[in-house]
Amino acid sequence: MTASLPPVITTPAAAIDALATLAEGFAAVAVARDKEGTAPVAEVEQLRATGILPALVPRELGGGGLDWHTVFEALRPVIRADAGLGHVFAYHFVNSWRLQLNENQPRIDELQRGLAANHWFWGGAGNPRDAGLELTPVEGGFTVSGRKFFATGAQVSDRITASGTRVDTGEKLAIIIDAHQPGVVHHDDWENIGQRLSASGSVSFQAASVPDAHVLGFGEQSGPRYRPFASLSILLFQLALDHLHVGLAEGALEAAAAYVRTTTKPWSTSGLSRAVDDPYIRELIGELTSATRASDALTWRATDALAGAAERGWDLTDAERGEVAVEIAAAKVVTTKTVLDVTSRLFELTGARATGEAYGFDRFWRNARTITLHDPVAYKAQEVGDHALQGNFPEPSGYS
Amino acid sequence: MTASLPPVITTPAAAIDALATLAEGFAAVAVARDKEGTAPVAEVEQLRATGILPALVPRELGGGGLDWHTVFEALRPVIRADAGLGHVFAYHFVNSWRLQLNENQPRIDELQRGLAANHWFWGGAGNPRDAGLELTPVEGGFTVSGRKFFATGAQVSDRITASGTRVDTGEKLAIIIDAHQPGVVHHDDWENIGQRLSASGSVSFQAASVPDAHVLGFGEQSGPRYRPFASLSILLFQLALDHLHVGLAEGALEAAAAYVRTTTKPWSTSGLSRAVDDPYIRELIGELTSATRASDALTWRATDALAGAAERGWDLTDAERGEVAVEIAAAKVVTTKTVLDVTSRLFELTGARATGEAYGFDRFWRNARTITLHDPVAYKAQEVGDHALQGNFPEPSGYS
Amino acid sequence: MTASLPPVITTPAAAIDALATLAEGFAAVAVARDKEGTAPVAEVEQLRATGILPALVPRELGGGGLDWHTVFEALRPVIRADAGLGHVFAYHFVNSWRLQLNENQPRIDELQRGLAANHWFWGGAGNPRDAGLELTPVEGGFTVSGRKFFATGAQVSDRITASGTRVDTGEKLAIIIDAHQPGVVHHDDWENIGQRLSASGSVSFQAASVPDAHVLGFGEQSGPRYRPFASLSILLFQLALDHLHVGLAEGALEAAAAYVRTTTKPWSTSGLSRAVDDPYIRELIGELTSATRASDALTWRATDALAGAAERGWDLTDAERGEVAVEIAAAKVVTTKTVLDVTSRLFELTGARATGEAYGFDRFWRNARTITLHDPVAYKAQEVGDHALQGNFPEPSGYS
Amino acid sequence: MTASLPPVITTPAAAIDALATLAEGFAAVAVARDKEGTAPVAEVEQLRATGILPALVPRELGGGGLDWHTVFEALRPVIRADAGLGHVFAYHFVNSWRLQLNENQPRIDELQRGLAANHWFWGGAGNPRDAGLELTPVEGGFTVSGRKFFATGAQVSDRITASGTRVDTGEKLAIIIDAHQPGVVHHDDWENIGQRLSASGSVSFQAASVPDAHVLGFGEQSGPRYRPFASLSILLFQLALDHLHVGLAEGALEAAAAYVRTTTKPWSTSGLSRAVDDPYIRELIGELTSATRASDALTWRATDALAGAAERGWDLTDAERGEVAVEIAAAKVVTTKTVLDVTSRLFELTGARATGEAYGFDRFWRNARTITLHDPVAYKAQEVGDHALQGNFPEPSGYS
Repeated sequence: MTASLPPVITTPAAAIDALATLAEGFAAVAVARDKEGTAPVAEVEQLRATGILPALVPRELGGGGLDWHTVFEALRPVIRADAGLGHVFAYHFVNSWRLQLNENQPRIDELQRGLAANHWFWGGAGNPRDAGLELTPVEGGFTVSGRKFFATGAQVSDRITASGTRVDTGEKLAIIIDAHQPGVVHHDDWENIGQRLSASGSVSFQAASVPDAHVLGFGEQSGPRYRPFASLSILLFQLALDHLHVGLAEGALEAAAAYVRTTTKPWSTSGLSRAVDDPYIRELIGELTSATRASDALTWRATDALAGAAERGWDLTDAERGEVAVEIAAAKVVTTKTVLDVTSRLFELTGARATGEAYGFDRFWRNARTITLHDPVAYKAQEVGDHALQGNFPEPSGYS
Repeated sequence: MTASLPPVITTPAAAIDALATLAEGFAAVAVARDKEGTAPVAEVEQLRATGILPALVPRELGGGGLDWHTVFEALRPVIRADAGLGHVFAYHFVNSWRLQLNENQPRIDELQRGLAANHWFWGGAGNPRDAGLELTPVEGGFTVSGRKFFATGAQVSDRITASGTRVDTGEKLAIIIDAHQPGVVHHDDWENIGQRLSASGSVSFQAASVPDAHVLGFGEQSGPRYRPFASLSILLFQLALDHLHVGLAEGALEAAAAYVRTTTKPWSTSGLSRAVDDPYIRELIGELTSATRASDALTWRATDALAGAAERGWDLTDAERGEVAVEIAAAKVVTTKTVLDVTSRLFELTGARATGEAYGFDRFWRNARTITLHDPVAYKAQEVGDHALQGNFPEPSGYS
Repeated sequence: MTASLPPVITTPAAAIDALATLAEGFAAVAVARDKEGTAPVAEVEQLRATGILPALVPRELGGGGLDWHTVFEALRPVIRADAGLGHVFAYHFVNSWRLQLNENQPRIDELQRGLAANHWFWGGAGNPRDAGLELTPVEGGFTVSGRKFFATGAQVSDRITASGTRVDTGEKLAIIIDAHQPGVVHHDDWENIGQRLSASGSVSFQAASVPDAHVLGFGEQSGPRYRPFASLSILLFQLALDHLHVGLAEGALEAAAAYVRTTTKPWSTSGLSRAVDDPYIRELIGELTSATRASDALTWRATDALAGAAERGWDLTDAERGEVAVEIAAAKVVTTKTVLDVTSRLFELTGARATGEAYGFDRFWRNARTITLHDPVAYKAQEVGDHALQGNFPEPSGYS
Repeated sequence: MTASLPPVITTPAAAIDALATLAEGFAAVAVARDKEGTAPVAEVEQLRATGILPALVPRELGGGGLDWHTVFEALRPVIRADAGLGHVFAYHFVNSWRLQLNENQPRIDELQRGLAANHWFWGGAGNPRDAGLELTPVEGGFTVSGRKFFATGAQVSDRITASGTRVDTGEKLAIIIDAHQPGVVHHDDWENIGQRLSASGSVSFQAASVPDAHVLGFGEQSGPRYRPFASLSILLFQLALDHLHVGLAEGALEAAAAYVRTTTKPWSTSGLSRAVDDPYIRELIGELTSATRASDALTWRATDALAGAAERGWDLTDAERGEVAVEIAAAKVVTTKTVLDVTSRLFELTGARATGEAYGFDRFWRNARTITLHDPVAYKAQEVGDHALQGNFPEPSGYS
């Protein structure tokens, strides 16, 4: 962490400007960084230096007091430039914001104050498909043990959001783990075809310390005391994926358009002197752009729906949550299709020479193909379908 | 026209309620009316009786003072019920609202007052692909002659928006034609596979009278005095098509879902006892619904963009108009694809017996197939593409 | 039935020529006949008059001795002209050929001789989704009772292939029913959106007579004595659907191309003087034609596979039948998608005026939409998928 | 080149077996070799050692006397295993077979004898989009100078097929270049995202020697003496691409199916215990497999059409060539779409963990995306479209 901390960003314009500037820098080195594929240590420091990390913390707790619409708007250029960075950055906001979906309000407030004061970067370790973490009671709190895969951001974080099960009582608890302690081992094993800067490898906890102040009580989604508000974090992760898909498509289209304008040669039998006049290029980029605009419009509508749900707090009803969940799921279905089409077909705009590795145009598809597999899109379509057919809402779970 | 006229609708809620009620009635007879395919004379009377016809006329001229967002929201259930009626109703609003895109403000105001007072239903006769109408000067005005195809609504209208060229000077003028005069001949020749209630046949003018009070001066889009605001009517027609596409898809999905819930038998090898549990039906309707939601979101974003442009009045710039035109064109590309997919594939939800003519489910595709051909969608994709590639805006024309 | 019967067609060339000639006539009145939608009584007489009805009966029994490849090749132009006729004609061949998939060879031979001598037209009444027919023993045979929907061709047939269950023993038997008897009631209730000339309504049997000579013993697919050869009829029906899909696509493309060449006006902003030079029309018809060619190639490969299986007779193994079934199912998946795309998108080639009812271009989609729903294509994809994943073959059933 | 040369393969079975065996070995190291991305020097030696290089040379000249159907059948498993190798191997056959499309029969025969005797591996340097090579007359022949990109196989070849223009007369001549001479410089610059083992970088000729015996006279496709047969090489290259597309799709499907069977976990909300029972996986792989089968069927039909055209020799007419060209172009349109769908969507079968780099599943898409860009598929659709609309045949060119 840097010695001197920045002032907290408190206006939408400042947030948007700050990340737009960062994004330019990321774009300039995106191809090289994708090749390296190392964890985004430096980039997280750059993000921290903007003062945006506590943007969602309420003003009264020292934070920026901004809203989700602003945060996603600010993140979009980063996603366009490098969706791996967009991924890990977006997850910081979800993993820190979700603090408030828990029981122990004083501890939640204290952690939010800490985020505002210290500009902690936040990761998560909650992949629902892995075995759960184990919590062993010790004096003054617990120790936590276990391993989680797909722990996006944990490797470059200061604090990690997780949950664990008490080995003595079987009770499930929401916890926060200090990432800078010996018992937290980052395996640096994210060797995947895309989202290479997203620090999405696995993390092990070997009797790492979780003091009482980091135990938030009954977790989100847990058991008899479950209320709809508690599981909004899941919808936020899903919504972040929607934004990642759309931003990736936008980034790919911008890159392709620039290449066509400057580099693509008109096809020999077209009788044209400029590639931008080729009817098939004009039509195809028009179709892909139109699909991307529709994906974008639905994603923003879902964002506003979620922001509205978040404002309802603990009064949020099952039906209100359900409507948002369906909208976000529908966006997942559409944005998934769009981003895969755009990132694969962009080469039909640019032509054969653009397959040269120096251009790195394949990274868009590799990123898209990786991030769109977070959870199977067919089951998202099924959720939307159950609502259309029978008015059912998705059952809250680790993915819905 | 009815003897006693209703009060003008002046609130969004009243407009929305009134058309929702109408739509229920239209839905109940939609299959039978589609078979008949006759002009919507009775339905226009029902619409008039609600008091919504002058909804867009400013309050100060006696109108409802409502906005485009409200009008399209109110129209949506009608479109779902019977897209032919949705078509002809939507065109009433565009053809009457576009009065104000002309030169002669006093005459425009007077016509708007007339609409507010008399609840005239408005048609158009402006198909740009036909030969132009001819205007011959006579005392107190002109006579107009010529024939126009695809004159949606003219047959059931009181007033017709058109333009014509003076035979003496070659000047092009925007005109309004009283539809109830001997020189206006409706050929009642709309014998097409879809949009059968849209009264989209041809109209002939045989020296019909156009008094000076119905001559609005230089027309929209005309010549050296062209300004961007003047051609907003074209974008409104295009936007109305977007709404027709989305409403058709929504109507088809609702009808299919109801049938699956009540009538479709589970497939023999599925091992299921209810069709709503079939995984392929659930997935497919989920995909189609998601696409429809995205189309809807983009269409509303385009609607708000157009409403914003309309408020700019004569100050509207080329770039401002251009941004709106691209958004509407993108919506055209996406909604066209969506509505064709939905209306054709709905039968894969319902199963073979739903091809029985009694159900009339094919009317959705026939309507969609007809209305989506208004102008070629490939050229809309091209427009979006030119903007994505080079930042170009569509050149204002009869279709852009 | 006509008084004088034609000579049996015995060469491929004669078969192909005869039906090509018929097809020309059918094409000329296809739009009008589709509007009427009456049963193809006259057309069946025309078909009979060619001498092709016994084409598949072995020479030694008086038949044409031709093979399935020839029959489907001859049928193709009829399908292109009017897929309803193609449907009912193709089913004649399947329903009469499948005689030999039964137990009682002397009776089979006798019926085949009868077909060769009398040029009977053959229908079927075997929809597996309906309740089974009941057979009551009487002196010299049985009576049959019950009702079957989707009984393609029964209404215009001389003989009907069916199966029934003995009310006394529960044994299932393959039977042939003389269609010209009082106990056979044709409901003439095929009022569906497509395949309107296919005579696919329902038929009731009210104690109709089935003499012993028309009882063929254990039926196809039945019980412990099941052997793969016995259920080839199901694959033939499925293969006939593949040919119907491809022929429909071909017919639609031919019709569209002719219209574009002769009638479509170039789009106003294309800058072209002929529609055939429009890049988007050229590309789209190229894509649709390519998909149709691929569908066609796979359908013929499946045809040859099935012809090979048929030649194996009772030696056919489960695996041999399975390979053919997977190929035919794959063709179903591909041809379904192709024909729906082609018949819906053809209007993007022709343009808006081609939605005029006089052209009848919507009949291609209506036919395609109806015939492709014979059984759900998703379950065909599932069968192909099970083979690709695990090497499984489709379980023989009424649809596989 | 190896010191001891193998016997020439002379039977289809031997050819097919030999390459099937090679393919197994290639598959085992395909992921690692893709990562290395070095030129296939060792693999070409393995291919040579089978004795298949002269398979297409007539028996009377010492060759294998095999036909194109056999060669493509033998190549298919190699394509499935590693499409880069499939590419460079297929081009050997096209580049050596095309010798006979030239004028000087004695020299052609001599070169074919040389191929049979020496098992030369053949490359090409003919990218039509680059500047032409220059031929300078010297005693006993010419020297050749210039540079060609996308010179698949040249780097690992013994002989290179090319054409050049005489600097003195402007005459265009077909030539063969000995690849093992100082004036031939391989830039080893194929650094592209796919087809990494295809040795498709650039080659420079710096006054390399071309003795008279390597000058074949007027080249294929040249000028007034052009005859259809002369340009069959272009169709063979296109057909080879079709086979590459289909083989890639098949290889990807096999790899995905194996992974799903062994590794994919069933989705948490599916309620299933095995991924192979997931309905969406079953359906999706069924759809992709069906599309691949259709692509395959059309590609073989095109192969047989081309083989038939090749047998016609110099008697081949424009129309005969044209029909083959349209079929191959249609296959290009269909196979391109299929292979892109299959290689991108395979991850929806396998699930998220299959994005691990260790599996290398992205290589299928990278290969497909690279090879499908050989020339723009939209123009192939246009060619098919021109034929469908107007009966036109593609104009012979470097790509048609």
